[in-house]
Amino acid sequence: MTQLSEIGEFGLIATIAKNFAELIPHECSGIGDDCAIIPIGKDKSLVVTTDMLVEDVHFLRDRITSYELGYKSLAVNLSDIAAMGALPHSTFLSISLPSDISIEWCEGFFAGYRAHNVALLGGDTTKSTEKITINVTAIGTVDNENIKLRKGAKAGDKIYVTSTLGDSAGGLQSILQNRPNKELIKAHNLPRPHIAEGLELSVNKNVTAMMDISDGLASDIRHILEASNVGAKIELSKIPISNTLLNSGLNAMELALTGGEDYCLLFCAAPDAEFAKYRQIGEITSSNICKIVWCEHDIPTERSFDGFTHF
Amino acid sequence: MTQLSEIGEFGLIATIAKNFAELIPHECSGIGDDCAIIPIGKDKSLVVTTDMLVEDVHFLRDRITSYELGYKSLAVNLSDIAAMGALPHSTFLSISLPSDISIEWCEGFFAGYRAHNVALLGGDTTKSTEKITINVTAIGTVDNENIKLRKGAKAGDKIYVTSTLGDSAGGLQSILQNRPNKELIKAHNLPRPHIAEGLELSVNKNVTAMMDISDGLASDIRHILEASNVGAKIELSKIPISNTLLNSGLNAMELALTGGEDYCLLFCAAPDAEFAKYRQIGEITSSNICKIVWCEHDIPTERSFDGFTHF
Repeated sequence: MTQLSEIGEFGLIATIAKNFAELIPHECSGIGDDCAIIPIGKDKSLVVTTDMLVEDVHFLRDRITSYELGYKSLAVNLSDIAAMGALPHSTFLSISLPSDISIEWCEGFFAGYRAHNVALLGGDTTKSTEKITINVTAIGTVDNENIKLRKGAKAGDKIYVTSTLGDSAGGLQSILQNRPNKELIKAHNLPRPHIAEGLELSVNKNVTAMMDISDGLASDIRHILEASNVGAKIELSKIPISNTLLNSGLNAMELALTGGEDYCLLFCAAPDAEFAKYRQIGEITSSNICKIVWCEHDIPTERSFDGFTHF
Repeated sequence: MTQLSEIGEFGLIATIAKNFAELIPHECSGIGDDCAIIPIGKDKSLVVTTDMLVEDVHFLRDRITSYELGYKSLAVNLSDIAAMGALPHSTFLSISLPSDISIEWCEGFFAGYRAHNVALLGGDTTKSTEKITINVTAIGTVDNENIKLRKGAKAGDKIYVTSTLGDSAGGLQSILQNRPNKELIKAHNLPRPHIAEGLELSVNKNVTAMMDISDGLASDIRHILEASNVGAKIELSKIPISNTLLNSGLNAMELALTGGEDYCLLFCAAPDAEFAKYRQIGEITSSNICKIVWCEHDIPTERSFDGFTHF
């Protein structure tokens, strides 16, 4: 018997994708981007994504309010919709609950979920023996010409992020170490999906590749590099880090590069484009294919960083 | 604190539906049928459904092979697609797995899932601390004029089912009581979604209402009665029951009426239509609104039957 941990999450996904490849309708695009793409009509597509949150893996029941959990369950999916440059259309929610959950808990959960003002069109409510599991499927709409993918980054492109990094991971540390830091915990429990940013970038033809940061910059940017068959040079001094995280006593740079659940956008754009609102953190290279060269003041460092992986 | 069990699954769903009603796009139809409906273009719609299977609630890991579990996880969703008269288009799978699951188990699961020959366009694989949880979202396509809903049944309509009832519940009893009955266990572990039947009935204008039987006839038919504002008379002697179930030593009639997970179709049709292939089990009445009158040889009985409910 081979344990799942030997091939890991991405190994499992690769195996699945290979086995199902021939079933994918020719007009659709499936596993490999933030969302699957289902064309509707001539000029438009639906994008679809799904995410599962498991108690004691993705959250601790007594460290997050049910409002925050409801908010976050949908936020992580809306972030994937944003990453495609799409507008959220509707959602589906499945939730399994142990019988000791109160109606008040449920009310809080649905108030948080509803705060995003996106339609809930269906779902499944069921019992569990002990733990809470939540699965959301979200659907968005997008004009075909505005869809942003992970592939498309070209050597010379600049690399940007739409907000500071690491606050959410700092929040998780703050929760686990019982050193409550309100602002960081808010970043972790109530992550804002960057929908407006995604829509704005979707209509900009200079943007060549886009995704959201959910497993941490160091892990996620590899998806763009692999899909685009390019390399990247990242300048550590340009990584945007909040003062809150810098002053928290935590390892801010490590968290900013490898901490998960930031749910901001990571994008590449042609070198002559300007994005005053967003922070440029590096550039795409034609050398070091699929690799990241971390630089400090333009000099490559020996440090290595890895993002979060499941299993 | 109020316990969830006090309002039950349908109480919870009603509360959710009410809270989210105003967010539903005007052209869409949400909670209340087997699938949500999302129109695409002028004449076509997507139908979308989602179902969660939880270890020790919906299945026992050592009593079902991973192939069967993969098959069943998708089957229960395809059954909802069939109930709308739609053709399966694509699916999304989320699965949380404890770390002691082997790769061989995963391979069996995906082989069973793939047996339906429907595309897998995305999903989420994640760790769990102990139990397996599976969530599938399935999407189908249907011509608007062929969509079948729960509402639409009229007094005088005949009520039909597309297969024998109770075999799946008999299989569950057989598993739980350690009295292995291969055929019944197969009905429980490998339920066939009635897609071909659904497509055939969808183009028949005589069919006024349709749904799939997942919680048991006695419970499910109430959804048609409530949506259509009618009553029903069901003739017990007409309920189709397999010889396997009749000879199993189990309470066949009770299981046929209240046992869940049959995953066949229940439909109503104009009285002058003929359906030689399917069994007529009763008729829709204008009296006894939202109630079922159970009859034995046309004489109402005092017996009452209830289907399965969560919480």
